[in-house]
Amino acid sequence: MTELAPETRARVAARLRDQRIETASWAYGNSGTRFKVFPQEGVPRDPYEKLADAAVVHRYTGVAPTVALHIPWDLVEDYADLARHATELGVRVGTINSNVFQDNDYKLGSVTNPDAGVRRKAIGHLLECIDVMDRTGSRDLKLWFSDGTNYPGQDDVRTRQDRLAVALAETYARLGDEQRMLLEYKLFEPAFYMTDVPDWGTAYAHCIALGERAQVVIDTGHHAPGTNIEFIVAVLLRAGKLGGFDFNSRFYADDDLMVGAADPFQLFRILHEIVLADALSGRGIAFMLDQCHNIEPKIQAVIRSVLNVQEATAKALLVDHAALKAAQDDGDVLGANEVLMDAYHTDVRPLLRSVREDMGLDPDPIGAYKRSGYLEKVRAERVGGTQAGWGA
Amino acid sequence: MTELAPETRARVAARLRDQRIETASWAYGNSGTRFKVFPQEGVPRDPYEKLADAAVVHRYTGVAPTVALHIPWDLVEDYADLARHATELGVRVGTINSNVFQDNDYKLGSVTNPDAGVRRKAIGHLLECIDVMDRTGSRDLKLWFSDGTNYPGQDDVRTRQDRLAVALAETYARLGDEQRMLLEYKLFEPAFYMTDVPDWGTAYAHCIALGERAQVVIDTGHHAPGTNIEFIVAVLLRAGKLGGFDFNSRFYADDDLMVGAADPFQLFRILHEIVLADALSGRGIAFMLDQCHNIEPKIQAVIRSVLNVQEATAKALLVDHAALKAAQDDGDVLGANEVLMDAYHTDVRPLLRSVREDMGLDPDPIGAYKRSGYLEKVRAERVGGTQAGWGA
Amino acid sequence: MTELAPETRARVAARLRDQRIETASWAYGNSGTRFKVFPQEGVPRDPYEKLADAAVVHRYTGVAPTVALHIPWDLVEDYADLARHATELGVRVGTINSNVFQDNDYKLGSVTNPDAGVRRKAIGHLLECIDVMDRTGSRDLKLWFSDGTNYPGQDDVRTRQDRLAVALAETYARLGDEQRMLLEYKLFEPAFYMTDVPDWGTAYAHCIALGERAQVVIDTGHHAPGTNIEFIVAVLLRAGKLGGFDFNSRFYADDDLMVGAADPFQLFRILHEIVLADALSGRGIAFMLDQCHNIEPKIQAVIRSVLNVQEATAKALLVDHAALKAAQDDGDVLGANEVLMDAYHTDVRPLLRSVREDMGLDPDPIGAYKRSGYLEKVRAERVGGTQAGWGA
Amino acid sequence: MTELAPETRARVAARLRDQRIETASWAYGNSGTRFKVFPQEGVPRDPYEKLADAAVVHRYTGVAPTVALHIPWDLVEDYADLARHATELGVRVGTINSNVFQDNDYKLGSVTNPDAGVRRKAIGHLLECIDVMDRTGSRDLKLWFSDGTNYPGQDDVRTRQDRLAVALAETYARLGDEQRMLLEYKLFEPAFYMTDVPDWGTAYAHCIALGERAQVVIDTGHHAPGTNIEFIVAVLLRAGKLGGFDFNSRFYADDDLMVGAADPFQLFRILHEIVLADALSGRGIAFMLDQCHNIEPKIQAVIRSVLNVQEATAKALLVDHAALKAAQDDGDVLGANEVLMDAYHTDVRPLLRSVREDMGLDPDPIGAYKRSGYLEKVRAERVGGTQAGWGA
Repeated sequence: MTELAPETRARVAARLRDQRIETASWAYGNSGTRFKVFPQEGVPRDPYEKLADAAVVHRYTGVAPTVALHIPWDLVEDYADLARHATELGVRVGTINSNVFQDNDYKLGSVTNPDAGVRRKAIGHLLECIDVMDRTGSRDLKLWFSDGTNYPGQDDVRTRQDRLAVALAETYARLGDEQRMLLEYKLFEPAFYMTDVPDWGTAYAHCIALGERAQVVIDTGHHAPGTNIEFIVAVLLRAGKLGGFDFNSRFYADDDLMVGAADPFQLFRILHEIVLADALSGRGIAFMLDQCHNIEPKIQAVIRSVLNVQEATAKALLVDHAALKAAQDDGDVLGANEVLMDAYHTDVRPLLRSVREDMGLDPDPIGAYKRSGYLEKVRAERVGGTQAGWGA
Repeated sequence: MTELAPETRARVAARLRDQRIETASWAYGNSGTRFKVFPQEGVPRDPYEKLADAAVVHRYTGVAPTVALHIPWDLVEDYADLARHATELGVRVGTINSNVFQDNDYKLGSVTNPDAGVRRKAIGHLLECIDVMDRTGSRDLKLWFSDGTNYPGQDDVRTRQDRLAVALAETYARLGDEQRMLLEYKLFEPAFYMTDVPDWGTAYAHCIALGERAQVVIDTGHHAPGTNIEFIVAVLLRAGKLGGFDFNSRFYADDDLMVGAADPFQLFRILHEIVLADALSGRGIAFMLDQCHNIEPKIQAVIRSVLNVQEATAKALLVDHAALKAAQDDGDVLGANEVLMDAYHTDVRPLLRSVREDMGLDPDPIGAYKRSGYLEKVRAERVGGTQAGWGA
Repeated sequence: MTELAPETRARVAARLRDQRIETASWAYGNSGTRFKVFPQEGVPRDPYEKLADAAVVHRYTGVAPTVALHIPWDLVEDYADLARHATELGVRVGTINSNVFQDNDYKLGSVTNPDAGVRRKAIGHLLECIDVMDRTGSRDLKLWFSDGTNYPGQDDVRTRQDRLAVALAETYARLGDEQRMLLEYKLFEPAFYMTDVPDWGTAYAHCIALGERAQVVIDTGHHAPGTNIEFIVAVLLRAGKLGGFDFNSRFYADDDLMVGAADPFQLFRILHEIVLADALSGRGIAFMLDQCHNIEPKIQAVIRSVLNVQEATAKALLVDHAALKAAQDDGDVLGANEVLMDAYHTDVRPLLRSVREDMGLDPDPIGAYKRSGYLEKVRAERVGGTQAGWGA
Repeated sequence: MTELAPETRARVAARLRDQRIETASWAYGNSGTRFKVFPQEGVPRDPYEKLADAAVVHRYTGVAPTVALHIPWDLVEDYADLARHATELGVRVGTINSNVFQDNDYKLGSVTNPDAGVRRKAIGHLLECIDVMDRTGSRDLKLWFSDGTNYPGQDDVRTRQDRLAVALAETYARLGDEQRMLLEYKLFEPAFYMTDVPDWGTAYAHCIALGERAQVVIDTGHHAPGTNIEFIVAVLLRAGKLGGFDFNSRFYADDDLMVGAADPFQLFRILHEIVLADALSGRGIAFMLDQCHNIEPKIQAVIRSVLNVQEATAKALLVDHAALKAAQDDGDVLGANEVLMDAYHTDVRPLLRSVREDMGLDPDPIGAYKRSGYLEKVRAERVGGTQAGWGA
């Protein structure tokens, strides 16, 4: 497949131009592990500066026009003003992420806390996030709960599920007709015995109880070792319940490395399921990055991540579906696998470079960004104030 | 809690007398790994002899009155006769397990095979299993599919789900009003890229599509590392979708060691969820053993396994629910954990010995079995013929 | 084994009275995950107050007379004064832990950093820790390096090993004749592609290159899923290279829960290997706690942890070695396992209560601590100043 | 890197022509899981036919001139005759693999069995394997022991290590000056509590005790989840103790899928360490395949596996070491990673096609093999007799 037929090339290029990948405001701020947050120079000091960095990513990649916010990390006085600021920069506010894990009250949980007052406060925050959505025009509310327990017996599993169901129902009821709720699951961390939404099955069960606009979101770093993520993608697609992705990669746990860095073949397989189901665009699946750039330069890392998703997508678009189906129907194990691998082994970087040129972009986004002097500029400008970061 | 209050003792003892644990016919035959099956002397040569061994387990434990069969491993001419034989031995035929993984046809799957003829044959076998149930009076049909793929691209995930749904629906439709279908999931083995029912979420989604009599069965060895099994137990109980257990234990993968041998604390936590939900009896949850005794004497190993479940159950019954709830409501992390651990640390063996005496049994089932000379007897008698085993 | 023979009881009691478990200064301060540190009232504000809390643990347990320090978290002007303060409180300074992971310089590693100046600085810190040991009379320097890389290619594996070897050799050369170096390994976190000392094999290889006083330390939370830790204990004991333990427990990764909370049977198996090798005391193995009490009260959690180690030890001391060896030599798989399980299932709490009474202690350390009013007292007193915590 | 400089191309091509990959005789016979062995038509019936199939693989790939044997699976009357037969086919006998896991005697272990007679027998077999080596001219004796235990307490860890050390020493002493012993480790299966050589650390410790000609062999499927295999490669290379590889791939456990099928990026990283250390040839590292082709055609699967190793090697050879080192020394995390990824993303298939043409081979080995009609021929010829397989 080293020589692409012109019609293949045109088809794939068209899809690549239309692809949309959302970056996350918190990726531009400082982040770290429990052991240490290493600060970086030039990091944004407020949501406005985060949007500026996100706009740079979009400027060089052309496929990252929206930015997810995290409330209250991205608390501002006037969200309409923030949205206007985004527009001026050439981007838009995307998904709103609730944060109910950083108040002292939430030590034993937010919406599943044993204390009714704390649960009330947490639900209140979720509703406020929808207020923000109303003002920013965001479509999706993404819910991740750090809720869980550290010790067997600490709290009651089913009671906590009941509390969760109550909170989700009240929040769902508040959604506008065009708004959606994306429920995220995670096996562990920061809870270490049990989390209240540990797996896709739990998220799925809650979502079908809620209704059509409740959808499951897959964070690629939130599974047990050995979990076949693309299987979950396919099953949720079949059920009409895949709301989106939080992309990142990992070798061990929720490492939050750049997507595609740890297992590019897995990323390709995930995107292959998406392409197979014709769900790359127009079906309401949000493709988001959720990563921590602890030791690498942040903007460059986000650009790299966007490119990694693009490259995996390009390869997935090259899979010969007819040949694949023929081999599968034939029971030709090696033949079918070969069709897939043929696409995977193709070097799609020349194709992507020319797609970028068609879009009026520099074919080498990272080189262009580095040459732009942007990092040097913000390093010089953004002195004083408090750097934004995990929790700020 | 070293001294049990008389009323606690009476309450717990009553529940322990009523507990029922089903043993599996194949546990009495030879089994092994892909590397080697080590034969043992005295192993049954046919289903009748397997029932005889199972009856011995019941004779010494008093709580194992039913025996699961595996079709076609336990194929007989006349199932009514087999059932009669069981009754004479003091036991009954329990769950019927289908086997659609040992014909050459099933190399690429059974009900999800790309070949329609193979799928038809597999469904036919499932329906025949219900015929067997009609004749044995079994309530439950347990379905485990080895179906899956070894290589990415080998077959289509969603298409295979569709085929699975068709097979399950046809089988479900054939069930009598008092019969149930128990759907088992397994992460991997013998398929090594993807199994068609890898996790509880997939089994659950199919079961809710089918109806009330389709239930999920949890094999304790079928999960990814780190999976919190008791959470799944609790969530399925809450949803009314827990049909039963295939008990065994493991350190690594589906090791099929004796239940409670690898992680007795986990077994206790599972049974704690069962007791908490008052689901130990009368709610239709089947407590089954599904193990391979590759290197240890089989009957003794099954007795040991039954005792392990009993001991974990006894401990779970000793948990002080009122104290637990009070500590949980109070947010007393260490206090709540302590209530659970207090029960776990209790030595329940004296209690179980006295429960057995109340039931007219020897307080030491393993000692009594060993003294009985049964193993020596069958070793002498069961010469000639073909030993039953994995696949026979 | 529910009734202990008097001589067994006396033998076991004597060993339990002699057991020594070291607590860690940082366990008394605030800790958390990357998502949030939940502060607790009454937490120490300096190393002197940490020692006071540790002394309380020793007062109620009688077996925790030493306290590990972390440099620079426990930096003081005058270590001789700190050691004197400890003595007045009835405890002593134990192991010195180096910390070369919280300076901004260490972003890409400490002793394995690509920058020679950073490596020099890190080695300098290790040597300073030995200066502290000279002043506190500590025997052991415990080295854990967060060093590693997040991305494939980021740095060279073998070059980093060379740098590590240089740093260890220089540090080892500075040790006094009675001082030891304990080298800790960890699979991942905070490095997410590779750590420079990921497993016992790597630590062992460096230790044998260094000499007799370099020993491996096992942190029970630092392994890949499925690792058989007691096997490593046995193999290191056989090689004379087990220097000590950092005890804690985990369900998933390096969760740092209370030791014995996640898998009490594993803790028992570890201590069984220790007892089997007659290595409980006098062989220079340091039994240390290294945990994070993120949501539970800290002093009570440390007491609970000490009790958990004691209970596992008591059970291990009850294993009938002669019966175990006889069954093993006989190839009696179930018999040998039963000997071990018999000890594990014994409720050793009554024995431990009476051991405590013999030692002049309250038989119920947690109850006694709670009744003492200590927590209420420090909550009232320790206002103002900065709470000690992870990183302070 | 899409356009290779001529000198790069020449350098890489030369190395690829010299590469040697050993295939395994048992890969050509039937294999399966514990659930089922699916037989395939045309499978060899004796070692002579296995060599014939191996010769076909070499004919089409040009880099697989040696074949590993498994004793006693490949037991023949006259090994000199077998070796001669191999030569006539254009291949040679390679590594000799001992098999001490398929006699009934070995139920509780071979060289670590509690029974001295069984241990004697097992050592006898190891010595006989060296006799075979003398006759075949093989350099390497590969030792994998299935030895281990299924239940805690079943046998004594340290005693078993002592027995292992005795067996290894006696076998090592019998080796000729040009012969080597390769010791393999495996985390689990078929033993499920503990294996006697579970990890590289254990194998390494035994090898350094034995001497220079004892080396560790890495089977890529024998690790705990999350293990960084290329780290082990690098550390063993640094220690001069890497004897070879058993290549295969896995998603879960020891799945024994085709190498490179599950994680091609990992295979590339492994070969990158090999190339970095200039250990691709001439340093005595044996590159062997050890796989089970349970559902796919065997010869084609072996060819595919050889190609996968070649492709990963070609990519590893393309890594720009100077640029990599410069970025590493500079602390340029993303730059260094990019150098590695640049090589990985290159499509090396055109290069390999031209290398094959230079070698006088068909550029498309799989197509050529399929067109050859070999499979149809052996299907027709190899009827009657007993198909070779796992254990035969």
